[in-house]
Amino acid sequence: MLRHRLYITRALCQFMACKLSTGLFRNILKTKHPTGDMWYTRSCLQSILAVTMAPRPFSSSQPRDYSLPNTSWSSEMLRLYEHYNIMCEVETERGDKIKGQWTRLPSYNRFLKYAPGGQYLSKLLLAKARLFTRNIEEQGAGFEYVVFENKQEKTCVCVFQAGHLLEGPPGHVHGGAIATIIDSVTGTHATCHSGPAMTANLTINYRSPIPLGSVVLVHSSLDKIEGRKIFISCQVTSSDGSKLHTEATALFIRLFETTY
Amino acid sequence: MLRHRLYITRALCQFMACKLSTGLFRNILKTKHPTGDMWYTRSCLQSILAVTMAPRPFSSSQPRDYSLPNTSWSSEMLRLYEHYNIMCEVETERGDKIKGQWTRLPSYNRFLKYAPGGQYLSKLLLAKARLFTRNIEEQGAGFEYVVFENKQEKTCVCVFQAGHLLEGPPGHVHGGAIATIIDSVTGTHATCHSGPAMTANLTINYRSPIPLGSVVLVHSSLDKIEGRKIFISCQVTSSDGSKLHTEATALFIRLFETTY
Repeated sequence: MLRHRLYITRALCQFMACKLSTGLFRNILKTKHPTGDMWYTRSCLQSILAVTMAPRPFSSSQPRDYSLPNTSWSSEMLRLYEHYNIMCEVETERGDKIKGQWTRLPSYNRFLKYAPGGQYLSKLLLAKARLFTRNIEEQGAGFEYVVFENKQEKTCVCVFQAGHLLEGPPGHVHGGAIATIIDSVTGTHATCHSGPAMTANLTINYRSPIPLGSVVLVHSSLDKIEGRKIFISCQVTSSDGSKLHTEATALFIRLFETTY
Repeated sequence: MLRHRLYITRALCQFMACKLSTGLFRNILKTKHPTGDMWYTRSCLQSILAVTMAPRPFSSSQPRDYSLPNTSWSSEMLRLYEHYNIMCEVETERGDKIKGQWTRLPSYNRFLKYAPGGQYLSKLLLAKARLFTRNIEEQGAGFEYVVFENKQEKTCVCVFQAGHLLEGPPGHVHGGAIATIIDSVTGTHATCHSGPAMTANLTINYRSPIPLGSVVLVHSSLDKIEGRKIFISCQVTSSDGSKLHTEATALFIRLFETTY
C-alpha cells in the first residue's frame, strides 16, 4: 500500500516563484528520513509534481503580498523594513540602480489551490485553505513579518511583529507561535538556497519571553550542507540585537538532487 | 537593570482553575535556565504574582469551554472524544458514579485580562488578546482539540482535528502548527502535574505529514522530574495509532518549589 509520507516545507510557497523545468524531476529519488526509517514514496512525488507543475500562482490576478508594509506596522517594524529594503537596490557611481546584496521575499496566504485535485481535501476545504502564518485577515492581529535574504552571506533576516492573537504566557508570544516563525523563516531560507525541502527536525531553546506586540528579528544562518541535508541555525533577538529571546537549529531535507 | 526573562507556559491557563495560596510564593527562587545563563528575575515574579493572584477567571460569567464538542467535529473526532470522556466517570457496583482515571481539561481562549495592568500591552491590545491555539472564531477552521489527563499513568492524550487555516505544505498541517499543539499539550501536562511551568526546550522530529482536516492523537508522557526540571516526551499518531507523524521531547521548568 502506498503511504503518504512526504513533508514539503511551507517554504515551497516562496519556491513557486521560481522557474521549474520538468527535467528536474528525473533526479527525484526515494530518500531515507535522516532520523528514522521513513521513506518518501511515489505518491509523495506525485504530490510534488502536481504542485510544482501546476500553473504559475496568481497568474490571472495580482494577489496581496503580505510582506509589504501595512497600517498595523509599528514605527520600529517600518524602520527595520526600510533598513533592509534599502539594501535590496543600490546605486552605482554612474547613477544606475542595480540589485543589492539583499532580496525581499514576497509572501502570500495560499498555495494549495495550485495542487489540482488535492488528495486529502474536499474542494470546499481546498478553496478555504490558508497558509498558517497568513491565516488572519485582520492586519496586525497575527503574524506580521517580512523576510530578506542575503545569498552571498547565506543568511536570512525576518522582521517579525507579533500580534495580539498570538498570546501564550500572559502578555507574551506563545511558544508555538515562536516555533512557527522559526520554521517558516528557516524553511524559506532552505528552499531559497536549495529548492524544495522538508523540515526533519526543529530544536528550540526558549531563553527569554517575547512581549506581545513587540518587534523582533529572526536571524537564519545556513551552517552546512551534507548531501541532501541542510543545517540551519536561528536566533530570535530583540530589534536592537541586545536581547536573545530564542535559539534554534533546524534540519531540512532537500527533495531534489539538483541545487538551484 | 531588571530584565524580563520569565517564560510562563501557555499551560498556566489550565492552572488558573486551581486554588493558589499566597504562601506558595515564599518558595519562589531565582532559577537558572537549564540550557544557558539566563535568570528569571524579580520583575518576572511580579508578573506571575499579578497573574496568579488576580481574581479567578471568568468568575462573573461562564465562558465558552473550547474543549467541548461542536458541529465542526468530525465523526472520528467525536468517537475519540467519547472514548476518553466515558472514562472520566465510572459506575460502581452500587450504581454510584465516581471519578474515573481520566479527566477532561477545560480550555478557554483568553487569560491575559486577569493580569492587571499588563506590563507590555496597551489596554486595547490587552482586551483583544487571545490564546494562540484558540484565536480563530470560526469553528473547525483552526485548532479543534481536547486534552484528557490520566494522573495515575502520568499521561495526557489530546484529540486534535486540524482545520483548513493551519496549512503548511500543500494539503498538510504546518510544522509550526504541529509544534504549537505539542507545546500546548505537553505544557498543559507539566502544569497539571507540577504547577506553573515554563517551556525551556522543544525538540521535534517530523516523521510523516498530517493531512489537513484529519484527526490525530497527541500522546504526552511524563518521563522524569529532576528538581524543577520536568521531562516530557510526546508522539503525534494517526487516530488508530498505526502511523507515527511526529516525535518530540519537551523540557519545562517548574516556577515554584511546591508540587501540587
